[in-house]
Amino acid sequence: MIPFVSRIDPLEQDAWIKTLSVAMPDEVILPFSDLTAAQKQLCDVAIVANPDPQDLLALPALKWVHSMWAGVERMMNELSSPPFSIVRLIDPDLAKTMSEAVLAWTLFLHRDMPAYAKQQARQSWLQRPMVRAQDRRIGVLGLGELGKVSAQRLAQNGFSVSGWSRSAKKIDGITCFHGDDGLTALLGQSDILVCLLPLTMETKGLLNQQTLSRLPEGARLINFARGPIIDDDALLVMLDENHIDHAVLDVFMQEPLPVNHPYWQNASVTVLPHISAPTHPVSASGIVASNIKNFRLTGDIPPAVDPVRGY
Amino acid sequence: MIPFVSRIDPLEQDAWIKTLSVAMPDEVILPFSDLTAAQKQLCDVAIVANPDPQDLLALPALKWVHSMWAGVERMMNELSSPPFSIVRLIDPDLAKTMSEAVLAWTLFLHRDMPAYAKQQARQSWLQRPMVRAQDRRIGVLGLGELGKVSAQRLAQNGFSVSGWSRSAKKIDGITCFHGDDGLTALLGQSDILVCLLPLTMETKGLLNQQTLSRLPEGARLINFARGPIIDDDALLVMLDENHIDHAVLDVFMQEPLPVNHPYWQNASVTVLPHISAPTHPVSASGIVASNIKNFRLTGDIPPAVDPVRGY
Repeated sequence: MIPFVSRIDPLEQDAWIKTLSVAMPDEVILPFSDLTAAQKQLCDVAIVANPDPQDLLALPALKWVHSMWAGVERMMNELSSPPFSIVRLIDPDLAKTMSEAVLAWTLFLHRDMPAYAKQQARQSWLQRPMVRAQDRRIGVLGLGELGKVSAQRLAQNGFSVSGWSRSAKKIDGITCFHGDDGLTALLGQSDILVCLLPLTMETKGLLNQQTLSRLPEGARLINFARGPIIDDDALLVMLDENHIDHAVLDVFMQEPLPVNHPYWQNASVTVLPHISAPTHPVSASGIVASNIKNFRLTGDIPPAVDPVRGY
Repeated sequence: MIPFVSRIDPLEQDAWIKTLSVAMPDEVILPFSDLTAAQKQLCDVAIVANPDPQDLLALPALKWVHSMWAGVERMMNELSSPPFSIVRLIDPDLAKTMSEAVLAWTLFLHRDMPAYAKQQARQSWLQRPMVRAQDRRIGVLGLGELGKVSAQRLAQNGFSVSGWSRSAKKIDGITCFHGDDGLTALLGQSDILVCLLPLTMETKGLLNQQTLSRLPEGARLINFARGPIIDDDALLVMLDENHIDHAVLDVFMQEPLPVNHPYWQNASVTVLPHISAPTHPVSASGIVASNIKNFRLTGDIPPAVDPVRGY
């Protein structure tokens, strides 16, 4: 028996439990609210989707939880020192989907789609200078699974790609930077900056007035990571001054983005409703099923989130 | 001595001659209007960019002309049986640029960018169902150099790709159709249809009410070939009835697209000012230089346009 612990919409929860049950025919998966007191004593693993921490703390035998998503920072924040391991979803299809989104919106900016949309609105027939992909410098912030696969996909499609991570990395075909000096260097040579960093104490507000001003004049920005990494006020000023030409934002400090937020009406901002890499239920359930099956057979818990680094 | 024969803007003509002269330091390249009567008697090769046919017929020794562009249908129409060969530009970079445009605007349609732009305009936060690339069926019309490279690039990026050409072709990773029956089959299974056909007597008006209605309900369309291949009235009706969800049009019956044309204001149409694959002057001049140098050494004329097929 595995509890599904979440604060998501009940209909959505039912859909997840159904898909997970198909992927794990040998397990009984129940909503946390359906558990008896006796069942709560026995659970050694739980599947979670934005859970209430109090629910998890009510499961004394819990060894680990498997998140249905890659982002677990909210759970990490709410549970300062959880007595169980937190495993986030590392789904190869998720990296593929994210890299597709990165490629799609990089091409959107590279091929001047925002400018051509504005021209169409005023019936203007004007050919803008063509920049070859090899002459367009893309900087990818974050070289975890999502950042690495995305950077490689951009390189495969002809772009000149650099990447930055906290600690040194080596990736074929990608110029890798790291540390504070590396960040300054990367920003200075990014015509399009793609943010795929995890949200941690260190990355919160990382893209602020000081760092964004290091981008080349007319640079473009994509944030597919987490809203709080960007200082919104600083970005709005940079867009207003045309230091940043256009921003594609899929994530925000508050989601859904409040109706009166200035991003909605800003012609230099493309607002997306957190759709860069939606979890494909069947694919995600297969990964979770495989990890839990392995745990049942061997007792092994998949690599967990580091509580200090936060990812 | 090589004449440059064109009806393009004089400043643009000068720029081309300059770039061509750098690529061919052993040749003297002159605007047609600067040629002496004696020089006209001697020219065996000319470089052309939308030339006046009368100018070409004034060069009695002309064996062949090299176009700076891939499209030569206007010259073919104006010269019913030219006494020289017409060679169009086959530039590997051109196919790369076109395949980038095909990928960029296929992703634009695949990832629902037009719908998300409309949502942003009304501050609507709504996640649309995600379709995986392997579940998105792309149909490419035309499997010449541009169509082949584009189809392969779409397949490399995970799409399910089919293609159609007049005569049978075989391309790794692409389901190839041909002939009239093949066209019907391809249209019926194209969620996104990409037109890369040459404009000939046979392809003029090929995408009309009858053929477009074979597309699946809600299909999307990209035309990066030539405007007259599409029957505009039929397409506008199909868009109006939502049988076609969105069209990306880069080419038109008349260019620039007239200011009062209904495409400009249609929310289901993306109008582009013929920018899918601009000729990169340096790259194109290199190809022309190499073909002319080879002709000077060996007398060989590159493969010419077939006057019957028209491409």
